[in-house]
Amino acid sequence: MNLILLEPGDFTGPDTVALRGRRLAHIAEVHRAETGDTLKVGLVDGNIGSGEVLERSGDKVTLRVSLHKSPPPPLPLTLILALPRPKMLKRTVQHATALGVKKLYLINAYRVEKSFWQSPWLAQDKLREQCVLGLEQAVDTAMPEIILRKRFKPFAEDELPAIAAQSRKLVAHPVTNQSCPVDIAEQTTLAVGPEGGFIPYEVEKLQEQGFESVHLGPRILRVETALPVLLSRLFPAR
Amino acid sequence: MNLILLEPGDFTGPDTVALRGRRLAHIAEVHRAETGDTLKVGLVDGNIGSGEVLERSGDKVTLRVSLHKSPPPPLPLTLILALPRPKMLKRTVQHATALGVKKLYLINAYRVEKSFWQSPWLAQDKLREQCVLGLEQAVDTAMPEIILRKRFKPFAEDELPAIAAQSRKLVAHPVTNQSCPVDIAEQTTLAVGPEGGFIPYEVEKLQEQGFESVHLGPRILRVETALPVLLSRLFPAR
Repeated sequence: MNLILLEPGDFTGPDTVALRGRRLAHIAEVHRAETGDTLKVGLVDGNIGSGEVLERSGDKVTLRVSLHKSPPPPLPLTLILALPRPKMLKRTVQHATALGVKKLYLINAYRVEKSFWQSPWLAQDKLREQCVLGLEQAVDTAMPEIILRKRFKPFAEDELPAIAAQSRKLVAHPVTNQSCPVDIAEQTTLAVGPEGGFIPYEVEKLQEQGFESVHLGPRILRVETALPVLLSRLFPAR
Repeated sequence: MNLILLEPGDFTGPDTVALRGRRLAHIAEVHRAETGDTLKVGLVDGNIGSGEVLERSGDKVTLRVSLHKSPPPPLPLTLILALPRPKMLKRTVQHATALGVKKLYLINAYRVEKSFWQSPWLAQDKLREQCVLGLEQAVDTAMPEIILRKRFKPFAEDELPAIAAQSRKLVAHPVTNQSCPVDIAEQTTLAVGPEGGFIPYEVEKLQEQGFESVHLGPRILRVETALPVLLSRLFPAR
C-alpha cells in the first residue's frame, strides 16, 4: 500500500476521513503511523495528496487530508483480454491496474475453459478489490472499468468496431513476423489471447476489424508476464 | 509446460528417453499424448526439438527424440536483484528465467528483511526447480546461474567491478530524471532494489561503480511487474 485509497464515504468532514478495517490495520501494522505522522493518500477517481494522522485508536484512524496532485496519466489503451484462469485472474487484474490500464474487457475465446466463467472473483465487487490493490501499489486513483463479455463472436462483430474506432488495433499473436512496436503515441486497442493463444478463426475475426498481429519474440510468456512486456514496449513511462 | 525439459540422465539410448513423475503426469494429463504423438522437447543447456511417444505406461513414458534447433538467444544481461520476500521469490525467479535472464545475483540490501535469507526456497535445488518451470514455459533450455550474496558492501566493492566490467551499468531507481532506455544493444548489468528501493548509501555505492539510475515512470511496481517492464524496454524481442 504505497497510497491509502480513500472512498467518498470515508469523509467525516470537508478534509477529515475515518478509516477502519484493512486500511486501519495497514496503517497501524505496516506504517506504524502515530498522531502527527503523514501518509500518502488519494481519493478514488480524484487527486493524490497527504493525510496527517489526527488520532488512532483500536477501531479507527482519523486523518486530515490535503489532495492537491493529479494521479499519473492513464495509458491511452483499451485492453481486451481473454479471461485468464481463476488463479491468474486476480494477479492479472492487479498488474493491469498497476500498469495504468483503465478500460479492460474480459472476453471469451475458444481456449478459455467454460468453468473459468464460474469464478467468484468475477463479481464486480471482487474485481474492484483487485483494482484497489493495484491502485494502492502504483500510487494511482483512477479506477479501471472492467467489462465481461461471455460470447466472442457477437463481441467481435457487433461491439468491437465501436470500441476500437479511431485507435491503433493490435493483437498479440506469436505466429507473425511483426514484432511489437515501441513507444507508439496513439490511442490503442490491444487484444491478448488465452493460454495457447487465439485460434485462427478468432485471429481472422480480429483482422477483419483491422487488428494487426504482433509478436513478443520466440519465448512463450504467461499472461501475467506478457502484459507488462507488451504495455511497457507500447507506451513510454511518463 | 510448452516444452518438456530433458536431463542427461533421462537418456536410455542415443535418441531415447524415459520420463517419470511430474513430466509423465503432465504428458498423460495435460498433453494426453499417446503412442505416435509428438511433443516439443529440449535438453538442458542443449538443443530444442521433438519427441515421439514410443510407449506410455502408468509409471513411465518413453520418447524418441530429435534435437536440431538452438534455444532462443539469452538476454545480454547480468541481473542483480535485492532478495525478494519468500512468496515473491519463486515467481520472480520463474519470470526472470522465462524472460531470458541467464545470470542472476540475489543480494542483500538494507530493506531486505533478514528473515528472507532463511527461506527454504533459496536452496540451489529449489531455485533450480523454479528455473525449470520458467524454461518449460518459455520454450528455452539454457539454465540460468543464480548466485547468492548475503552482504551488500563486499559484493558492491569487491565483486561488482569485475561482474559489471565492460557492460552498461543501470540501477532501477524511482528518484531520478532519466527514464529507462529502450532497445540498447549492449551487454548490460542491471540492479533492481527491494520493496521500498535501495537506500541512498546503496545507490551511491552503485554509482561509484559507474551505475546510472533509471526510472520507470511515476507508478511504483512490484518486482514481479517491474522486471518484465525493465527487460522488455531494454531489449528487443528476438
